[in-house]
Amino acid sequence: MQNTFKGTRDIYGKEIQIMQSVLDVVRGVFESYGFEPLETPVIERMDVLMGKYGEEAENLLFSLAEPHENGGLRYDHTVPLARFAARHWQDLPTPYRRYAIGPVFRAENTQKGRHRQFIQCDFDTLGTESRLVDAEIAAINYSILSELGFTDEFMIYFNDRELLSALAEELGLGGQEEVVFRGWDKLDKMSVEKVIDYISNEGGVEKEKKDRLLEVTEKLVATDEYEKLLSWMRGEFRSRKAQEGLQEIVNLRTAMLDLGVSENHISFNPLLARGLSYYTGPIFETVVEKAGVGSITGGGRYDRLIGEMGGPDVPASGSSFGLDRLISVMSELGLAPEGTQPTTVLVTIFDKKYLSDSARIASEMREAGVSVELYPEDDARLDRQLKYADKRGIPFVVIAGESEISEKKVTLKDMQSGEQRELALSELINTVSS
Amino acid sequence: MQNTFKGTRDIYGKEIQIMQSVLDVVRGVFESYGFEPLETPVIERMDVLMGKYGEEAENLLFSLAEPHENGGLRYDHTVPLARFAARHWQDLPTPYRRYAIGPVFRAENTQKGRHRQFIQCDFDTLGTESRLVDAEIAAINYSILSELGFTDEFMIYFNDRELLSALAEELGLGGQEEVVFRGWDKLDKMSVEKVIDYISNEGGVEKEKKDRLLEVTEKLVATDEYEKLLSWMRGEFRSRKAQEGLQEIVNLRTAMLDLGVSENHISFNPLLARGLSYYTGPIFETVVEKAGVGSITGGGRYDRLIGEMGGPDVPASGSSFGLDRLISVMSELGLAPEGTQPTTVLVTIFDKKYLSDSARIASEMREAGVSVELYPEDDARLDRQLKYADKRGIPFVVIAGESEISEKKVTLKDMQSGEQRELALSELINTVSS
Repeated sequence: MQNTFKGTRDIYGKEIQIMQSVLDVVRGVFESYGFEPLETPVIERMDVLMGKYGEEAENLLFSLAEPHENGGLRYDHTVPLARFAARHWQDLPTPYRRYAIGPVFRAENTQKGRHRQFIQCDFDTLGTESRLVDAEIAAINYSILSELGFTDEFMIYFNDRELLSALAEELGLGGQEEVVFRGWDKLDKMSVEKVIDYISNEGGVEKEKKDRLLEVTEKLVATDEYEKLLSWMRGEFRSRKAQEGLQEIVNLRTAMLDLGVSENHISFNPLLARGLSYYTGPIFETVVEKAGVGSITGGGRYDRLIGEMGGPDVPASGSSFGLDRLISVMSELGLAPEGTQPTTVLVTIFDKKYLSDSARIASEMREAGVSVELYPEDDARLDRQLKYADKRGIPFVVIAGESEISEKKVTLKDMQSGEQRELALSELINTVSS
Repeated sequence: MQNTFKGTRDIYGKEIQIMQSVLDVVRGVFESYGFEPLETPVIERMDVLMGKYGEEAENLLFSLAEPHENGGLRYDHTVPLARFAARHWQDLPTPYRRYAIGPVFRAENTQKGRHRQFIQCDFDTLGTESRLVDAEIAAINYSILSELGFTDEFMIYFNDRELLSALAEELGLGGQEEVVFRGWDKLDKMSVEKVIDYISNEGGVEKEKKDRLLEVTEKLVATDEYEKLLSWMRGEFRSRKAQEGLQEIVNLRTAMLDLGVSENHISFNPLLARGLSYYTGPIFETVVEKAGVGSITGGGRYDRLIGEMGGPDVPASGSSFGLDRLISVMSELGLAPEGTQPTTVLVTIFDKKYLSDSARIASEMREAGVSVELYPEDDARLDRQLKYADKRGIPFVVIAGESEISEKKVTLKDMQSGEQRELALSELINTVSS
């Protein structure tokens, strides 16, 4: 029996129903904020893909074999966006808000259970440095999660890379900021002491600075409450850059609240750094504590990346998430939609001679907007047809035999309750639609 | 400036809006007939793809480079369906109705303007020989085209491969039926005489048989009216196989009418053969005469193919169409949907100090279900913001300046008429939603 290509899978049944209903929500929210869809090809030129992601990621690129070796499969939606924007920038509205939903490909080590094809959902705004656009990242993620049924479960953490830099400078670690941020990013997995040890070993931090770093980190970790945290930081970090960074945090938070994000779902985390080094301003991360899978969405401002990736030299801000992880977290929390069978009614065929009648009933119901499946065999016993409806999870079955047809009636069976009743054809549609 | 991979393209702006609204219709119709979505991976194993399509097509397969050379890009949705069915047949409902919408990949010669990645829409029913399922092919194509706004423009031609075989046998050309069918398939491009010459040259047909073939072909071409055609054929072709084939045509036509297909949109064409040799029963082809692009959908029964393609040995029937061609025909006929801008309102920012007010208005409208874009810059002149709305085709603009905000009002500008009026915030939502 032949299998799928390693690390890929078929999506069908309930799973694809769930996926579609989640994607409908995601697409709807993106569009309600004025984002336009952009669909780039699955195959990109290798010269577009190479030199953009770093060596480690480049090893995960799928390239095509001869004579098409100049092509490879897209690794993300960002490089294609940069390529697209480079070509069309003059014709695009500024700012340009676009979303992309579609499969990306990475030749991951499948032993870790990683998929090599997965659906990535991105939204980005190009061409503006506005904080409103940064705040929209939180607002859109908030809207999506709320519409998907999340309530208390998630928290959107935010911070600003400029503020992070200012802190590193104040701590006398301006030259080692990469190591400091990398260390702070580990605070969800390691104790404060271990993180500080890691930073001082990796960065060669002197004893004195290390003590101060430990003290500050402990204070920042321990202070939960936003106003307290802010006022302590304002007093502690007096450089102009730090003060400006803190003001940015205030402005960003106000903008998020103005955009309707609930106060209970956003949290300023001055230690949030996010791994990727390309961020240049506000950064965000959505965490579902209960699920314990790390972040489910991430993003921020990256004002140099589009230019570096081959696009126009324009500021940009955006966010992305993997659909699989989102859905698996939803399942874990019991939030996944039912994955309801789209077919409402199975019309059975009682006997060969009533085939036309059954077909016509099915057709009339469809014209009224009901999803109807016609059992296709004209010689199957009724119990087999009912079993089929049961297996498919179809809620209603219509039976039209001799007595029904002569009286222009049908029998409607509710598969859940087992209840059966006779209805005039005209009543049927109203009954199953309600 | 870097380009897309040869033969691929970005889809954006109006084009993707049109595509999405067409796909919504297509998916809706598929599901209203009880078809389930199946999403197979873009990458398949090469041993799944090889040996299924014939040499010519195999040359069009995109395969991956080392170390993933055991994978290639899917060429169609049929082989993936066969692979899937082979694995899951025991767990699937019988009959199994599935649809697939997604990109397929062919390394076509791009000089002919062919795309190498295009969206193919397939629907197939596995596991039943029922004529109802064959008739559903016509019904589904009919429903899709009707919902897309086609009226008189299209005709669904149908025939049966068994009947075709019977005719070839009666003409003494049973051994040359492939050539006969290939010739008949050219009747839309060549004269009857030339077609018959082609058949007799290719098949080495004797003079006497050739005369008879010419006579029969001319008669079949000349007879339009269904009842006349049927009765002439019944009298002319007396073999049991031919008589049975003609009865199949009658049953198939009845089933299509029972399923709600209009009589004016189906036409029995006893000379329709369809190129592909794998069909075993009823065959269909939808033609839009005015567009002159050949058929826009095609399909039929193929009872051996799923087994031959590596799937379970089950009967099957289905149809497929390319989305690009469908949309280009719609455009040609003026039927393409408007590709309406999903954003209804642009909320402008009159001045930095009203940023919060504008953000809150946007957020409130979104909560009421209106698609709202917030102009992100807080220092742009109003005329620039209006120009942006115009460029994006956003129908309404909200302006909230000092006087408006102090009175809890906004100015709403209708971009098409240019009309402006003051509204209370509470009235705003009703006005733009209507």
